[in-house]
Amino acid sequence: MKTKSLRTVIPALLLTLSSTAAFAGMELQERKVPTPAGISTEFAQLFENRVISPAIPVPNNTAEWLALQAQFDAPGIKVAQQALERLDVTYEAKQFAGVDTFFVTPKNIAPEYKDKWLVHIHGGAFVFGGGESALREAIWVANGLGAQVISVDYRQPPLHPFPAAIDDAVAVWKELIKTQSPESTAIFGTSAGGNLTLATTLKLQELDLPAPGALFVGTPSVDLKETSDSWLTMQGLDPLGQREGLIEGTFDVYAGGEALDNPLISPIYADIDEFPPTIFISGTRDLLLSDTVRMHRLLRSADVETDLHIYDGQSHGDYMSGILIDMPESEDAINELGQFFNKHIN
Amino acid sequence: MKTKSLRTVIPALLLTLSSTAAFAGMELQERKVPTPAGISTEFAQLFENRVISPAIPVPNNTAEWLALQAQFDAPGIKVAQQALERLDVTYEAKQFAGVDTFFVTPKNIAPEYKDKWLVHIHGGAFVFGGGESALREAIWVANGLGAQVISVDYRQPPLHPFPAAIDDAVAVWKELIKTQSPESTAIFGTSAGGNLTLATTLKLQELDLPAPGALFVGTPSVDLKETSDSWLTMQGLDPLGQREGLIEGTFDVYAGGEALDNPLISPIYADIDEFPPTIFISGTRDLLLSDTVRMHRLLRSADVETDLHIYDGQSHGDYMSGILIDMPESEDAINELGQFFNKHIN
Repeated sequence: MKTKSLRTVIPALLLTLSSTAAFAGMELQERKVPTPAGISTEFAQLFENRVISPAIPVPNNTAEWLALQAQFDAPGIKVAQQALERLDVTYEAKQFAGVDTFFVTPKNIAPEYKDKWLVHIHGGAFVFGGGESALREAIWVANGLGAQVISVDYRQPPLHPFPAAIDDAVAVWKELIKTQSPESTAIFGTSAGGNLTLATTLKLQELDLPAPGALFVGTPSVDLKETSDSWLTMQGLDPLGQREGLIEGTFDVYAGGEALDNPLISPIYADIDEFPPTIFISGTRDLLLSDTVRMHRLLRSADVETDLHIYDGQSHGDYMSGILIDMPESEDAINELGQFFNKHIN
Repeated sequence: MKTKSLRTVIPALLLTLSSTAAFAGMELQERKVPTPAGISTEFAQLFENRVISPAIPVPNNTAEWLALQAQFDAPGIKVAQQALERLDVTYEAKQFAGVDTFFVTPKNIAPEYKDKWLVHIHGGAFVFGGGESALREAIWVANGLGAQVISVDYRQPPLHPFPAAIDDAVAVWKELIKTQSPESTAIFGTSAGGNLTLATTLKLQELDLPAPGALFVGTPSVDLKETSDSWLTMQGLDPLGQREGLIEGTFDVYAGGEALDNPLISPIYADIDEFPPTIFISGTRDLLLSDTVRMHRLLRSADVETDLHIYDGQSHGDYMSGILIDMPESEDAINELGQFFNKHIN
């Protein structure tokens, strides 16, 4: 069958409108998009003043990267402090296996999490989100599940490019499983933390070390080489901003000269044979929706037990807004996470 | 916590970029969007000449609706004929329970489908896609699974508005389960057919009749009242075109004056208590992605066993392109469907 004939038949499959269709190309027209109809009133409130991050120049040298890192992490640390107070979660900064970590404890530890620690790898485009700002997602999970969480405050670029973050996570994991059964705990993270959760698991497989019983991978960046579709289609709708410029700069400074299609840098290029059960979460307005569904499909193609949950109207990481406001979608996501972990590790 | 403070903290959750962000609103800028990076070469070929359906005026009277119906269904019938030939699938037009149906038989019937018929409810915005054009999806599933399929050629608007289609599907179901165990078979459909699959199941529950053992609901229209977000965000990227105009016209002529938030017309407004296991399929460039994920969440909120599969770059119903071309994503979708049915009905 020739491509030419497809032009008329394929768009005809469902509504058979093609017979009258004129060629328009894949062109997005300028438009205003209202707040999504299908979301909670609590989440809708966030849209009233929603801000798209502007393009930010890529730092030129180590000093500039470090300055930007400090500038970006400061408000994240404040958010973490607010959340700790609001949810009555506590933490302790510790060296564990020679790695900086935070041991995060919820107000009430659920019976099924009494004797275990989950491992958290924070997000923030590899370069940002460290120090106490790493606590945000750890707090969300610790409070939501009643679980104890070790958050890995891994070494970051510009001083420590790939594979320092993965090495740190592996070191923490090796130490943890001396006293805890690997199959009864999980590793989790969002965005770059989702990438590192996947990459750490791949590295554990490479090292022939036991893998966790489950993963939670939130809207991960899995392809640092190619620009997945939703980076382009959702630009302007996701407060995260855009990939071009600073975010691509973070990918480069993280890779530190290594090939971007190295599977430990871009897990979408991994040969997956077996893999722990994995739950993915993303949203329809998420710049990383395509990265998320591509990775979901890669795992499914290896028959991995994996669940996909997509929230309408959500942008990058919105599901964890529950640390600061009561938001049904955030509670729902925690509930999915809890059910998935109950099934696979509890 | 006041909304005002959220302005600065919420976008800060992950990348903490908000401290330097300027207000931009939810405004999509004009842009060209290339073929998605994460898709098969076979699927990518379809993008070369992809056509967006133009806005089409809403017919003014019954005669105009019937003329448009005939015009749209003609190429769909041709596609069905090509697919029958290409895949060696056969069919027989039959009255079954007083309803027009097609009994569709694949070249090779798989052992697990030997003694059962699946029930198909076709798509096409309620008004279109009838007659032999209904066969397209039935062929895809019959061939892909090696299953025998009864496709319901239900009565359609403008002559037969709601609830004629549902009544026909219920009549077929009642007749079928006289000789076949309901829990060992499935109902399925895409788009308006996904809506009708959900609505028929709700109606069976209302009538206290046995429900099927599983549903396949492809990119369904579940909210005919409100415009779900992806109808707006994806306009220009999905060949289906747009909701405003003709498609909203089909919703009105289908509802025939009934309230659009009647759960049998818009299943998103249903009170779901229990429901059969359901597999959903959609794509990241699908105008009905939001409808799909909203319905997935509604079922999940009732703890229904349900799987969500989202294909990168796919628009409305693209997954069934496999009836005309070899496309890995189409085979993958059939494979998911087969696994889901094996788990729940075979």
